[in-house]
Amino acid sequence: MRPDAPLGVFDSGLGGLTVVRALREALPNERIVYLGDTARVPYGTKGPATVVKYALACARHLVEQRVKALVIACNTVSAVAPERLRVELDIPVLGVVEPGARAAVLATRTGRIGVLATAATIASGAYPRAVGQISTRAEVFGQPAPLLVPLAEEGWVEGDVPRLVVRRYVEVLASADVDVVVLGCTHYPLLRPVIEDEVRARIGGHVAVVDSARATAGDVGAFLDSRGLARAVATGGGVRLLVTDVPRTFREVAERFLGAAVGEVEQIDL
Amino acid sequence: MRPDAPLGVFDSGLGGLTVVRALREALPNERIVYLGDTARVPYGTKGPATVVKYALACARHLVEQRVKALVIACNTVSAVAPERLRVELDIPVLGVVEPGARAAVLATRTGRIGVLATAATIASGAYPRAVGQISTRAEVFGQPAPLLVPLAEEGWVEGDVPRLVVRRYVEVLASADVDVVVLGCTHYPLLRPVIEDEVRARIGGHVAVVDSARATAGDVGAFLDSRGLARAVATGGGVRLLVTDVPRTFREVAERFLGAAVGEVEQIDL
Repeated sequence: MRPDAPLGVFDSGLGGLTVVRALREALPNERIVYLGDTARVPYGTKGPATVVKYALACARHLVEQRVKALVIACNTVSAVAPERLRVELDIPVLGVVEPGARAAVLATRTGRIGVLATAATIASGAYPRAVGQISTRAEVFGQPAPLLVPLAEEGWVEGDVPRLVVRRYVEVLASADVDVVVLGCTHYPLLRPVIEDEVRARIGGHVAVVDSARATAGDVGAFLDSRGLARAVATGGGVRLLVTDVPRTFREVAERFLGAAVGEVEQIDL
Repeated sequence: MRPDAPLGVFDSGLGGLTVVRALREALPNERIVYLGDTARVPYGTKGPATVVKYALACARHLVEQRVKALVIACNTVSAVAPERLRVELDIPVLGVVEPGARAAVLATRTGRIGVLATAATIASGAYPRAVGQISTRAEVFGQPAPLLVPLAEEGWVEGDVPRLVVRRYVEVLASADVDVVVLGCTHYPLLRPVIEDEVRARIGGHVAVVDSARATAGDVGAFLDSRGLARAVATGGGVRLLVTDVPRTFREVAERFLGAAVGEVEQIDL
């Protein structure tokens, strides 16, 4: 594998573009091929066997594009499928759960870590497992927050509705007295201002909010450096977008997550 | 085809169980095979070509179960795929859009009909088309209401959050001064009390709320009678449930939509 090869990034849909955004900020020289399985989104409400089946199909398609490493920009897939992907593929596979868990352990003082994520991610126990491998004293309190995905996709990220929805989820974490809240779903960074406000108001100003997308970008950079795989050329970085369906509001939603204009999009059939 | 054969009912997920509930109330003698494509739910945010592909796979599986007629218990599929299904299958195909449109035309006095539905259903123009085939004077005002699906699935059907979300959608219909509001998505009957309250408060007490599930059950009964296909036996009616994935909260969500206990569930691979 050569440094010039692109990074493969995939997600069940467009939420993973928040990870691409963080990768571009941290690693502007890298070329990225992003695959969003928009025909089968969301994975967060599906069973583990179905998630593994779909994730393997996406990952294999990216391997065919000769990517140098695969970033699973989806907490649900990172929670239920990384071991299967590591066994089946012969390229490095990085998820978003471990980096988020590590950042949370670094940030906590009391050892009480709250996680907001999809029902599937919480049910998988991936965050307690990842945290447990780093620290024996930290404890994870998981709160499924499924309404935040459609709110982020609709662009309802400020005002009464997102505030009340977020409040309902944050109040549960407040009663667990956590001092870190992990945004354990790639959609949630869009709601970060509302989540931070509610976390401060309901739990306290001392609570850290950890964005697993940013933590992941840091980890990917360190990994590429350690293997001599970082791309040194300071031009030609960019994103190629592949999707399995082009829904009507694709461009609008994609640009919201990516935080930048979206160019050409290729539709593929898996 | 014999009267004893079951009715086939399918939907992208579990929302269509509100149609099954209406069918069981209207036609208690009928046997029903329900197929929910829970591995690929929701269809409402996908493009038309993808919806047609998935709908055909579901429909063919039900034809193999020797159903006497196919009820598309999904507004999105009824909006974009009924003609393709009618051409490809040699059994009668009934959707939910035409019955809902007919009930709306019967209910309106001013000819101004509001429709709440998924983005895909509204974008398809299926309701204006169906209404236009019945009445030349009626006009349809469509309002996408995508947040109502996750609210119904989460069981957040009362309190501030659903009320504020519904209000935002109903206010648009109020400014169009409609006198009928069609629940154009099978999930929405669960939010009917909140929708009725907001419709009365924001538009007026004279406004009719039309449930396309109930309208469909009436149409299916009339159709079976007219073809001599109604099942006369007063025992053995019941529902067989097939799904393409068994998500973690399957039973809870399914029982909420069906309004009854759910027995055995068979998982199939399409």
